[in-house]
Amino acid sequence: MQFHLDGKLVPEDEATVSVRDRGFAYGDGAFETLRAYGGTVLAWDAHADRLERTVAALGFAEAIPPREDLHERVHETLDANDLSDAYLKLSITRGVQPGKLTPAERVDPTIVVQVSPLPRGGLDGQDVWDEPASVQTVATRPVPDASIPADAKTHNYLDGILARLELRRRGGHRADEALMRDAGGHVVEGATSNLFFVDDGVLKTPSTDLPLLPGVTRSIVLQLADEEGLPVEAGRYTVGDVHGADEAFLTNTTWELRPVESLDDTPIGDGPMTALLARLYDQRVEHLCY
Amino acid sequence: MQFHLDGKLVPEDEATVSVRDRGFAYGDGAFETLRAYGGTVLAWDAHADRLERTVAALGFAEAIPPREDLHERVHETLDANDLSDAYLKLSITRGVQPGKLTPAERVDPTIVVQVSPLPRGGLDGQDVWDEPASVQTVATRPVPDASIPADAKTHNYLDGILARLELRRRGGHRADEALMRDAGGHVVEGATSNLFFVDDGVLKTPSTDLPLLPGVTRSIVLQLADEEGLPVEAGRYTVGDVHGADEAFLTNTTWELRPVESLDDTPIGDGPMTALLARLYDQRVEHLCY
Repeated sequence: MQFHLDGKLVPEDEATVSVRDRGFAYGDGAFETLRAYGGTVLAWDAHADRLERTVAALGFAEAIPPREDLHERVHETLDANDLSDAYLKLSITRGVQPGKLTPAERVDPTIVVQVSPLPRGGLDGQDVWDEPASVQTVATRPVPDASIPADAKTHNYLDGILARLELRRRGGHRADEALMRDAGGHVVEGATSNLFFVDDGVLKTPSTDLPLLPGVTRSIVLQLADEEGLPVEAGRYTVGDVHGADEAFLTNTTWELRPVESLDDTPIGDGPMTALLARLYDQRVEHLCY
Repeated sequence: MQFHLDGKLVPEDEATVSVRDRGFAYGDGAFETLRAYGGTVLAWDAHADRLERTVAALGFAEAIPPREDLHERVHETLDANDLSDAYLKLSITRGVQPGKLTPAERVDPTIVVQVSPLPRGGLDGQDVWDEPASVQTVATRPVPDASIPADAKTHNYLDGILARLELRRRGGHRADEALMRDAGGHVVEGATSNLFFVDDGVLKTPSTDLPLLPGVTRSIVLQLADEEGLPVEAGRYTVGDVHGADEAFLTNTTWELRPVESLDDTPIGDGPMTALLARLYDQRVEHLCY
């Protein structure tokens, strides 16, 4: 693969950063996971919005190029690898600076686009996942908003990693996704996904007043449900609420909608609302990208 | 400078890591800040203990070399740069792995030693800081223990960075250090330092049941106070308690003991206990390293 590094295409094994880069030293950077379908990045503006929000939270909004420039780098990366259906990761860090922890005002950001092939989605596409998700609740809590803004997608990702490691330590049948709760016991999010469940005909998802990263796929699903006139509720829910659900699914850019087979070994599974929303999502992808 | 990268000495500008390194992607790594005096790393075993604890918390303890090997890399780095008085940073990340967030069991860690000159300390040494610290409380809260173990020193350092950025946003006279509190309003730690204060003849410092990184310098100071028979208390304190203190100082490996001139514009300053402990610290450095 060719990656995009600070304005140039380079072979993947030459895509390196200084050990003094603040992305490496402190996880001091922002990223977005993107998916290209038929050469078009789905929901580019929503991703660019969040990237700009993250960089603003980190205090170097004025140092990054306009989104059109970033969009072009993404497309140059796709073209250089002759890919139209792909997974992409766009990272912007605060780069190398003199001094130690305190950020300097002058920022020369490090901008990286990584890519790997991913089969097409949409109406004639295939799912990334082979099976519905097996989900386990974990003890690791998501980093609260008062420590790092929850709606910023940064290179500080250890809470999600520690959550996934708990699945390994648990042994036995290994779950695919770790579900984190806040200190009050409310379900918040998966390590890399947002949760939806269906209860008595209502589509429910944890509210953004909890410390969750509001995913772009989550927003699209909420919009599709709204357009379809489905009853939707964003709120605070316990694990018990999810155990009692009729259907449940996870969302992220790569998985799209992935049904939850079980939570903590309690079977849940999919159903008509999950199937409908997955179909509407595929149609939206088809409409926007192909 | 020459840095040490995965077992080899390389010029600083060739000390690079893959953008796929998990240290860069997620801050998925451990580090220690070290100080060498006269060619000896102060308190190497205490730093190695914490590094091993951090790596164990991240689940790849078995993948890192023995501490003697790491110690040798540190000394090779000093020697290659002809330095005996220096600041060093030793980082170990989970390296490059296939897949995305979930760590793979097989770990080939990235091991980096960075160095820069730092004038000698000890009895005839000089302080790194020019003036006592001006400290401000900030709204950013330290990441709680339930999200990332507080005693792990990881490459996820955004809470400290956001705390320091608040000082810039505040404008006016810029403080040197940001003091973070927990949700209950207890003072916890500075962005890169531990806090001590003296109240009615008792040396006080926030307790490790708060989400703080217990610094190696903090431990040495507590040990020195104990040896000297000074009354010491580790507990939970408010900003008001510190405002009312007779003396206050910050500790970290680089600063050693740095008096606090003011907290939130309330003057505090140093005094006999700070002076005594600073002198005992210099003697300890002299004894252990020169």
